[in-house]
Amino acid sequence: MAHIKLNNENLPGIVGLLDYSPATAAPLLDLANTLLQDDSTLTRAEREIIAASVSYKNGCHFCHTSHAAAAMAHAGADISIIDDIKKGLPETEVSPKLRSLLEIAHHVQQGGKKVTPEDIQAARATGATDKEIHDTVLIAAAFCMYNRYVDGLGTWAPVPNEAYVEMGKKMAFQGYGMSVPQE
Amino acid sequence: MAHIKLNNENLPGIVGLLDYSPATAAPLLDLANTLLQDDSTLTRAEREIIAASVSYKNGCHFCHTSHAAAAMAHAGADISIIDDIKKGLPETEVSPKLRSLLEIAHHVQQGGKKVTPEDIQAARATGATDKEIHDTVLIAAAFCMYNRYVDGLGTWAPVPNEAYVEMGKKMAFQGYGMSVPQE
Repeated sequence: MAHIKLNNENLPGIVGLLDYSPATAAPLLDLANTLLQDDSTLTRAEREIIAASVSYKNGCHFCHTSHAAAAMAHAGADISIIDDIKKGLPETEVSPKLRSLLEIAHHVQQGGKKVTPEDIQAARATGATDKEIHDTVLIAAAFCMYNRYVDGLGTWAPVPNEAYVEMGKKMAFQGYGMSVPQE
Repeated sequence: MAHIKLNNENLPGIVGLLDYSPATAAPLLDLANTLLQDDSTLTRAEREIIAASVSYKNGCHFCHTSHAAAAMAHAGADISIIDDIKKGLPETEVSPKLRSLLEIAHHVQQGGKKVTPEDIQAARATGATDKEIHDTVLIAAAFCMYNRYVDGLGTWAPVPNEAYVEMGKKMAFQGYGMSVPQE
């Protein structure tokens, strides 16, 4: 049970919080849509992988698994990608550019100052643009927020990966504006 | 110099980033306004103190000092409050409620799962409502994002506290929608 009394305790993870606080839900969902759904030279699957990987490193099961399931839906991947993200994607075909951006994202997860000029140079060497580096840093930073919101208020989350497959499809194909259940 | 080529390298901290990426600036500023400026049973000074204290713990000089300066403006406090926040506010009159909420915020800064049921009970014992606990967790989480955005992209920041006094006044009295310089 969450640390505070939500309006609907059946809603897991961030969903119950967005329902509890519509005033903050609006910019939180708008930010997720802008970072993860809007047109970008990073594919939606790549951006969801960055989100899921940072969430895993923050220990946020709900965000890791739901965003990994969204990456799975975008990439047409097998459900095994959810656990593969935990392991650093040894089994998934990942471009050198995405590998270098994940390195930056993981440093952001540890703290902004952990990002080094060498990280940036390495990403540029794989063809990453300034905009892609910017977006990677902000996606990683944003998930350091979402993860802390979800776990800092003690929300519940379904355990098995399979429970997230439908949610991932909805996130992938309907975007984040639709994630708050309508009465 | 920032890790990426900004449009205007004279703009410090998050200001240069908001100018670089207007699409993400909109929800980021909307969130700051909602959390820090909109009506709440937590005063604006209290919320800026939470933001500044979390930013200090994340090692983000720009965010700590600018939000401490905003707290200073709201509270009509002396400039010494900027450094007092670093020390845990020994010299500033702080209600037991705000002290207990700062404890929660500092745990959120370490990670969402660091918030304990005892933290929540302690805050409730000082009269904190569920909404105030919710907002504290989200302010702390949001500054874990803003801080990583600012430092993860290697932006520059003025050093002396005095350089932030005017900025703090603008933040306090004009809100965050006005923080992006208009051409």
